[in-house]
Amino acid sequence: MSHTLNKVAVVGAGLVGSGWAIVFARGGATVRLYDASEAIRARAMDRLASMLADMQEAGLVEDAAPILARITLCHSLEEAVATADYIQESVLERVEVKREACGQIAAAMREDAIVGSSSSGIPASAFTEDLPKRARFLIAHPVNPPHLVPLVELVPAPWTDASIIPVLRAAMEDWGQAPIEVKGEIEGFILNRLQGALLNEAWALYEAGLASAADIDRTVSEGLGLRWAFMGPFETIDLNAPGGIADYSARLAPLYHRVAESRRDPQPWSAKAIEQAEAERRSLLPQDQLQARGDWRNRRLMALVAHLRTQPR
Amino acid sequence: MSHTLNKVAVVGAGLVGSGWAIVFARGGATVRLYDASEAIRARAMDRLASMLADMQEAGLVEDAAPILARITLCHSLEEAVATADYIQESVLERVEVKREACGQIAAAMREDAIVGSSSSGIPASAFTEDLPKRARFLIAHPVNPPHLVPLVELVPAPWTDASIIPVLRAAMEDWGQAPIEVKGEIEGFILNRLQGALLNEAWALYEAGLASAADIDRTVSEGLGLRWAFMGPFETIDLNAPGGIADYSARLAPLYHRVAESRRDPQPWSAKAIEQAEAERRSLLPQDQLQARGDWRNRRLMALVAHLRTQPR
Repeated sequence: MSHTLNKVAVVGAGLVGSGWAIVFARGGATVRLYDASEAIRARAMDRLASMLADMQEAGLVEDAAPILARITLCHSLEEAVATADYIQESVLERVEVKREACGQIAAAMREDAIVGSSSSGIPASAFTEDLPKRARFLIAHPVNPPHLVPLVELVPAPWTDASIIPVLRAAMEDWGQAPIEVKGEIEGFILNRLQGALLNEAWALYEAGLASAADIDRTVSEGLGLRWAFMGPFETIDLNAPGGIADYSARLAPLYHRVAESRRDPQPWSAKAIEQAEAERRSLLPQDQLQARGDWRNRRLMALVAHLRTQPR
Repeated sequence: MSHTLNKVAVVGAGLVGSGWAIVFARGGATVRLYDASEAIRARAMDRLASMLADMQEAGLVEDAAPILARITLCHSLEEAVATADYIQESVLERVEVKREACGQIAAAMREDAIVGSSSSGIPASAFTEDLPKRARFLIAHPVNPPHLVPLVELVPAPWTDASIIPVLRAAMEDWGQAPIEVKGEIEGFILNRLQGALLNEAWALYEAGLASAADIDRTVSEGLGLRWAFMGPFETIDLNAPGGIADYSARLAPLYHRVAESRRDPQPWSAKAIEQAEAERRSLLPQDQLQARGDWRNRRLMALVAHLRTQPR
């Protein structure tokens, strides 16, 4: 486990904050969890117990009890963050909500604590500029749910102290996450830009009537996604030509550039295409089965993560 | 197994053709395999035996022997295709090579046979226009290797008889593949366009110095790729908002459109970025270990496919 960030606070106990609490406690840290909503606090520990029980059933943790025992529910933000080495902010994704929560965190935290925000799109510079301890803040954007999908994007603001990035990166590795470093506040960071590039092409093909949504989905779930579950796009192409990535690029870069050239005038996802996709999806999965399918997805994700752990890197 | 396409010929016994021979024989068809190269023919059956042994070891087939027994090596193209219900063309991806092979196939095949080309980029209209039986030809583009990755893109030429598409689609399903139908000869079809969209964004981020190739890879292999191994992009976003895909689109389409707008002027992958990525990859994986890593990828892929088969759909 991490040698420097042993006491962790999580501010916000929704789905993302709950997942984070499990990540840190599973990694051996002591966790103090707070949410401004009394209703969310009231059910937080039950939810954590239930999530951990699912993980134990899937073979992802050996014993849920000692993990849960490391998490303490707090009834004020100050109580949660005052002694923390690391604070994970997971409040609602709205700039004014983030700004207020980070102001309260900055007022209550230790001078040398580090604060990571779970923001998936709002850059840290949009809500930490006026904080007295702004150099200690950065984005630590997880994928949902963080206790199942390990990727974390670390995105500093221009005024973030650069020395905290390797410290947090090492701690995230120790906790079992997969941190990456984004060197600038680009919109969508890395993950949502890559997802967006694929989604934008998928919508354009769908809108042109070139394939059904189900067939486009299949192209990923029975094709591209199989390798991407254990190798990124650069390693994939590096292994897809006898001479490696430069060899692959010499052969195929012109094709991919023509694909990009054909999308020089990107259109927003159209209302008509969205309506059509919604109708197609609802014919495959009725509205009242969305929740059950979400549970299926989580079970599949847990089983996949358990499988991937057994494999040589 | 398929009720209508029981006798299959494979023309071209390289890696793709060999994978196809296994697909059809595993699915219960009798397979006649031919390659114009005597050297390739000489080692074809040994290679098939070795591929099937690996599959048996990974738990992907119960008994390799009866599968191998359904494959017959032929020493002329005519002998391979004359009686076939379905012919899979898997010769070199060059238009003049495809045109010549398809001409020979057209001359030797039954009037009512169907011919699928493994072409990954050249549309069928580029090499079947002048064939007497051109209505029986279409693209059946697999992912490499076809016996492990099930996706197959069916892409008709303008003159392809539309009635053969559902026949081949049903047969591919029976053989254990995942066929999709592409309704027009768009460059890159669906799979390489989706891959290209993600690759183009990855290269642009890399060239801007926003992340290392290893960190961009991680964003997929420890993040996006986990869900994409069992769900496509539309189902993923359908389950990522309480109200489904239309709800998700209302929230996030503007972000993704801004991502697209920021790439209005796409640049080719630059020589400098390719050189840098090659250097980064070779520091992670020396040239002399490319082959061993390719073997690792195939073992990972087999283990993943075995895992995915155990899961509820």
